[in-house]
This record gives sequence, C-alpha cells and structure tokens, in this order.
Amino acid sequence: MSLIDALNWRYATKRMNGKQVPQAQLDRILEAVRLAPSSYGLQPYSVLVIEDPALRERISPAAFDQPQITQSSHLLVFAAWDSVEEAHVDDLIRLTAKTRGQHPDELAAYGNAIKDTVSGFASDQDKFHWAAKQAYLALGTALAAAATERVDASPMEGFDPAALDDLLGLRKQNLRSVVLMALGYRDSSADRHAGLEKVRWPHEKLFIPMPSA
Amino acid sequence: MSLIDALNWRYATKRMNGKQVPQAQLDRILEAVRLAPSSYGLQPYSVLVIEDPALRERISPAAFDQPQITQSSHLLVFAAWDSVEEAHVDDLIRLTAKTRGQHPDELAAYGNAIKDTVSGFASDQDKFHWAAKQAYLALGTALAAAATERVDASPMEGFDPAALDDLLGLRKQNLRSVVLMALGYRDSSADRHAGLEKVRWPHEKLFIPMPSA
Repeated sequence: MSLIDALNWRYATKRMNGKQVPQAQLDRILEAVRLAPSSYGLQPYSVLVIEDPALRERISPAAFDQPQITQSSHLLVFAAWDSVEEAHVDDLIRLTAKTRGQHPDELAAYGNAIKDTVSGFASDQDKFHWAAKQAYLALGTALAAAATERVDASPMEGFDPAALDDLLGLRKQNLRSVVLMALGYRDSSADRHAGLEKVRWPHEKLFIPMPSA
Repeated sequence: MSLIDALNWRYATKRMNGKQVPQAQLDRILEAVRLAPSSYGLQPYSVLVIEDPALRERISPAAFDQPQITQSSHLLVFAAWDSVEEAHVDDLIRLTAKTRGQHPDELAAYGNAIKDTVSGFASDQDKFHWAAKQAYLALGTALAAAATERVDASPMEGFDPAALDDLLGLRKQNLRSVVLMALGYRDSSADRHAGLEKVRWPHEKLFIPMPSA
C-alpha cells in the first residue's frame, strides 16, 4: 500500500476493539520512530511503551477516560527531555564517534554547535518546546508507519501532562509527556468517526506557490 | 520500498545536484502533507512551495547560505499561523459540514471544544508553539513521503525566521516560518554526509517499557 493510500485509510481512531498488535508490527512502528529525523539528530525525547492493561486503567483518568487508552493494544507516551543539557550532547558525540569509527575530538566543532543551540534559547520553556517539536516530528513518522502497517492509531493531546508525569514518575527521569499515541484496531461499529469522509484544507488553501501568481 | 527501508535510505542531504523533482512526485509529497493529522484536524499552518531559483537565491542569506537552499529542486517553508482565531475554527466547521454533508449547527459542540482549546493557552506564544508542533508533525509526514519517493530532503531549522518572514511577506498573511524542507537529489560526491552510518539512540535507550522491569 502506498503511503498516500495509507494516509487516506487512517483516521484518529476513537473506539478500538482490544485486539493485540502483533509484536513484529509493533517493532516496525517503533523502528520507524527510532529512525525519525530530529534537529542535529539529538532525538531529545523518550517513548514509553505501555501494554499492561492495569497501568492503562490507571492512566485513563489523566486522559479524561477516553476509551482508546484502555481499548488500544499499546499506548505510546512521547515524552520530551525536560531539560536538554550539555551532557546529552556529549552522549550524542560519543555515539556518533562510535557508530562512525571516529575519535570524539574530530566531532568537537559539531558538538559545540549543538551546545550553542541548546544554550541559546531565550528560556527553558522555549528549549522544552523545541524538544517537544522533535517529538511531534517523530509522532508524524509513527503515524505514517502505523498506517502503512494497517494498524490504527489515535494521536492524543487531550490529557493532563502533569498528572501523567506524576503517575509515571517522568520528572525524575528528566522527561515530560507531550503527546500520546494509542495503537490498536478500530471498532467500526462503535466509532462514529469510522468511515467519515476525511476533512482537509484543499490544496490551494494549504499550499502557497511562490512567487505568487 | 518499505517505510523502514525508506527511512534508512534518507539522510539530511546537505549538498544537492540541482536536478528537478518531477511534478508527479512533488504532488505526492504535498498530498502526504495535506493528509497529515493535526490537532482537531485544524492544520494551523501553510506550506510555501518555492521553485523559482531567483527567489531561492534571495532566501539563501536568511538561511546562512546553506547550499541546499539553491541546489534543491523545491524549497518548502512550513509556516504556522501566527495567531489561531475563532474565525479559523468556523472555517474548519464549515469545511467539515460541507465535506460530510452536515449542517454546521450539528458541529457546534465540536467547534466550541476547539475554540476552548484555542482560547485556553496560557499565552499567545504557547498557542503559536502548539500550531508549530502541528507543522512539525506534517514535516515528519513529508520526510517519510519524500523518502518513499526516493527524493532527498533536508529538514532545516538553521535560518532566521524573522528575516525570512520579512522577505516572503508572511506576517501580513498571519504566518510565521517555523521549519524548512529542501527537496532534491543528493550530490554524493560533494556531500561528506552521504553514505555515513546513520546515528540513532539504541532501541533500549529511546524506548522505555512500562511498567519497568
């Protein structure tokens, strides 16, 4: 199935049937997330993978009891690094050197450029938003990957990040939840959104050719 | 080619050879962007599509003269809505009603929920970041789409948004540039990044199984 077909097939699935996503498909979706691009390749986030039904029951109130939290097969929590530090950049430089058989010193200028960016934000809040944006880019990759696997997904901003962070102990791991993605299979009979025509801005509104005609 | 293969094939292409991306492929990449999910389906951004070499020459200084600005085939400018207003939500409700053959009044509760979100941000800056995150999700979709087409791409944060907004007259269109994507073909002989091993956090660092073992 082409990516366009997959994107037309998918929709934000509000009711799921509880069926399990096979491990091989889950693994491919997670591998797509892992391969997602990010600024400097820093990937300043983690993704919590929650299968345990009991834990998802406990999470449900923090997400306004939306059914897909518990009806899904797996819940992914995209959590951005609460604070991006120089030590993270050093980790990336070490990983880069190891992966490419270089000496870390060869990458010093690259590391310093990243550190300049990281320390150059006007506020900690702006830096966190930057990290969160990278997580959204990865979410876009994940949604494309799930759709090509014909696994349904619900991207979710409707939750209380502070409550979820408390429940999952994220702050002490230098993480803050930014967006969720429930994975599973649509329950077409229960989901009034299933089969609805997709709504998107028309091409001529979304895209602006430049210079304009 | 599978999406995983495509994501392994792609890299942030720093040197391009000036070859043109065929219109049919460009159209498919843009259609993937158009189909990208967003919060409430609001798609609070536009994408400028810039092919004109003279305009890209003028843009180049605002992007620190990075070669892919002018060596690419097309430059996409993802520009988030500077301010998300109730009128935008009304537009979406009208589009939804028209697309699905409903009366707009049937969608009043849905529209009000979106307006509550839009008016509920702590600051205009937070609201803008929210719109920008949706654009990053679309960028993730675009990068996946380009890779499946075997079209190279360079996602770029390294530019001066204020300068670019001035040059393109974006502010008066209620837009602010948030991220760029150059589309074209790698110049493998000139690009020292071509063929380098991809660097990504290992699975066990990026993903946190919960409850933890």
